[in-house]
Amino acid sequence: MVDPLPHVVILGGGFGGIYAAKSLRRAAVRITLVDRRNHHLFQPLLYQVASAALNPSDIAYPIRAVFRGQDNVRVLMDEARRIDPDKKQVELGTRTLDYDYLVVATGARTSYFGNEQWERDAPSLKTIEDALDIRRRALLAFEHAERDPSSAEQWLTFVVVGAGPTGVEMAGAFSEIARHTLAKDFANIDPTSARVLLLEGGDRVLATYPPELSEKAQKQLEGLGVEVRTNTYVSGIDDTGVMIGEDRVAARTVIWTAGVQASELGGSLGADLDRAGRVLVRDDLSIEGHDDVFVIGDLAAATTDDKPVPGVAPAAIQGGKHAARCIRNRIEGRPNVPFRYRDKGSLATIGRAAAVAEIGRLRTAGFFAWIMWLTIHVFFLVGFRNRVFVTASWAWSYLTFQRGARLITESGRQ
Amino acid sequence: MVDPLPHVVILGGGFGGIYAAKSLRRAAVRITLVDRRNHHLFQPLLYQVASAALNPSDIAYPIRAVFRGQDNVRVLMDEARRIDPDKKQVELGTRTLDYDYLVVATGARTSYFGNEQWERDAPSLKTIEDALDIRRRALLAFEHAERDPSSAEQWLTFVVVGAGPTGVEMAGAFSEIARHTLAKDFANIDPTSARVLLLEGGDRVLATYPPELSEKAQKQLEGLGVEVRTNTYVSGIDDTGVMIGEDRVAARTVIWTAGVQASELGGSLGADLDRAGRVLVRDDLSIEGHDDVFVIGDLAAATTDDKPVPGVAPAAIQGGKHAARCIRNRIEGRPNVPFRYRDKGSLATIGRAAAVAEIGRLRTAGFFAWIMWLTIHVFFLVGFRNRVFVTASWAWSYLTFQRGARLITESGRQ
Repeated sequence: MVDPLPHVVILGGGFGGIYAAKSLRRAAVRITLVDRRNHHLFQPLLYQVASAALNPSDIAYPIRAVFRGQDNVRVLMDEARRIDPDKKQVELGTRTLDYDYLVVATGARTSYFGNEQWERDAPSLKTIEDALDIRRRALLAFEHAERDPSSAEQWLTFVVVGAGPTGVEMAGAFSEIARHTLAKDFANIDPTSARVLLLEGGDRVLATYPPELSEKAQKQLEGLGVEVRTNTYVSGIDDTGVMIGEDRVAARTVIWTAGVQASELGGSLGADLDRAGRVLVRDDLSIEGHDDVFVIGDLAAATTDDKPVPGVAPAAIQGGKHAARCIRNRIEGRPNVPFRYRDKGSLATIGRAAAVAEIGRLRTAGFFAWIMWLTIHVFFLVGFRNRVFVTASWAWSYLTFQRGARLITESGRQ
Repeated sequence: MVDPLPHVVILGGGFGGIYAAKSLRRAAVRITLVDRRNHHLFQPLLYQVASAALNPSDIAYPIRAVFRGQDNVRVLMDEARRIDPDKKQVELGTRTLDYDYLVVATGARTSYFGNEQWERDAPSLKTIEDALDIRRRALLAFEHAERDPSSAEQWLTFVVVGAGPTGVEMAGAFSEIARHTLAKDFANIDPTSARVLLLEGGDRVLATYPPELSEKAQKQLEGLGVEVRTNTYVSGIDDTGVMIGEDRVAARTVIWTAGVQASELGGSLGADLDRAGRVLVRDDLSIEGHDDVFVIGDLAAATTDDKPVPGVAPAAIQGGKHAARCIRNRIEGRPNVPFRYRDKGSLATIGRAAAVAEIGRLRTAGFFAWIMWLTIHVFFLVGFRNRVFVTASWAWSYLTFQRGARLITESGRQ
């Protein structure tokens, strides 16, 4: 059986891959979207699962369900192992796919900068499993302290390494859990005595934001009781604490949000990689010598007006739409067009009614920024059900100071 | 520091333990409730997590949060290892507790009747982790079939062993997932072709119900496409199928709901045990020689009017309340009173708008029984939030035929 329609293979069901496939819904193509997970993950809210505010299914949605109404998409749950751009083939775990156009959107994973042995004691936050692991560790810490108050200090010290958006959000959430959610639930310990340390190697939190917002974010964090230490490098992590230079901080819960490394799949493309393993793409997001291969999202080292495109969800979405546009053009005989990243602004939340926002010329911090953050994140959540349930969960948490998903369950990690 | 109040130790935070502690809220006692989990689990709805309809936190609630308003309860997350009723002590994982009154409510676990090697390939359904493991296996089965349609038959055969309430509910749920939820989501396979087998050693499903309701339940199951086989014993289970006598059924997903074994903790009480390991209690639920030790719920072999008290949630709740009443009596100088189990009826659900109910003389099957089942289960769910969210999830599922928690995540099992 010969199928005359061009075959578009999309690797990765994150923001980039999903939007690439959606943008091809009316194109005369066959699409195969491959992900090793069955679900799309709304990563900007992952820290809310780690901090027991949301359920996994609130922020994850089956990829098959996303494309139920789009007949030209086939979803395969499989792992992409290697790409051969000369043969135009992708090797998966169980088969090999031929493609006419390829969109590589496999993203990035956490980097420990060569200290991979730290991963065991300082988990990162990239997957649902990571989030459940962190949730379990944090909630168990209070239980350990309650059982043995003499060791409470180290159990009730929480260290977050890296003060990007995820680190800031996690630190704020730990502080809220201790000061509000669990405040009255223990007999032998006072959860409000918990310490939360946020360690950052650079000279300010939220380094990609304007300095004035970094300053406001730090004030808001300190208002929540978080100890912020900038210009601070971690020199060691084990199961009972963190080394900062020559000083030791006893802490049983350490979260690592300090670095990312692009997916290894990029290496098999034959294109040049930058230091973080990202693929150096041309101005149309294709790679040198292969204008039918597009690399988008966190895996791509792209630039607009000589400024690097940041590794954020909107950039992945725009990259996905751009790759789809180029593929449509090519099918209709037109060449690729250059990609321009449009910065629609940045938002980071810090805690209850606290956030910072930069949207165009507007720079704001506090309650208004937080409401904007809520609205935009709910709006972009995939799936009607998720929007309704997340909104309801947040309303409930806001009114009661409680968190709905305070469960300690076993994880696959330990 | 001498504390003059009698110390009540409650082992287990299931229905029995929770209700015992709640019923002592106005008593002049100090209560320590011990559970190895941090959450109370609403076990009657566990199959809904296994079948991707509900989230773990919809049916589990932190034990600490249950008792936030009750000052005489201390909650310890720890494991009870051994009881010494002569010394009036309980040995936990990290310490030893002295008690004046003891309530043992550690329940039952799954029994494979000496074939414990079947557990790996035929998981049971007792904990949140079990439910997530089953959810993952069932959803992955469809993904495997999609990847390799030549093996679809064995991937799309689901076998449930044991046709008690849990088995009936799981079989109904598998059938619904295949026929409705996933019906349109795959390209290479037809999920509606999935087979669901329900195997039962006895001569009818729901053996504890009146025969006429067993018959109706079987008809409803068959209406959902479930193949029901009674008088059928499993002689072997491995990772690719089930042996029924000399016949082999190729099936990749097998769930075991056929037997329970009481918690091993009962053995350390020195009292006689029945064949299922349950503690033979006296008519006041105390044990021979120790009228300050009460055994309740699934761990107790109790009788009322010479009929065995069934291992269901209402019996555990009544046992917990009874133990609390006896303890209050004893503190006020009165003796223990006998326990009488009041059967308030039985309800089992089979699927969408299908259920059977026996309440007093009323015996009914179908939509009305299903509405009763919904109402009663929501009413008894611990925690306001859970009620609201579960009701909303069910309404959403009913209207859309979708399931909100269709995530494949790694489990600790495999």
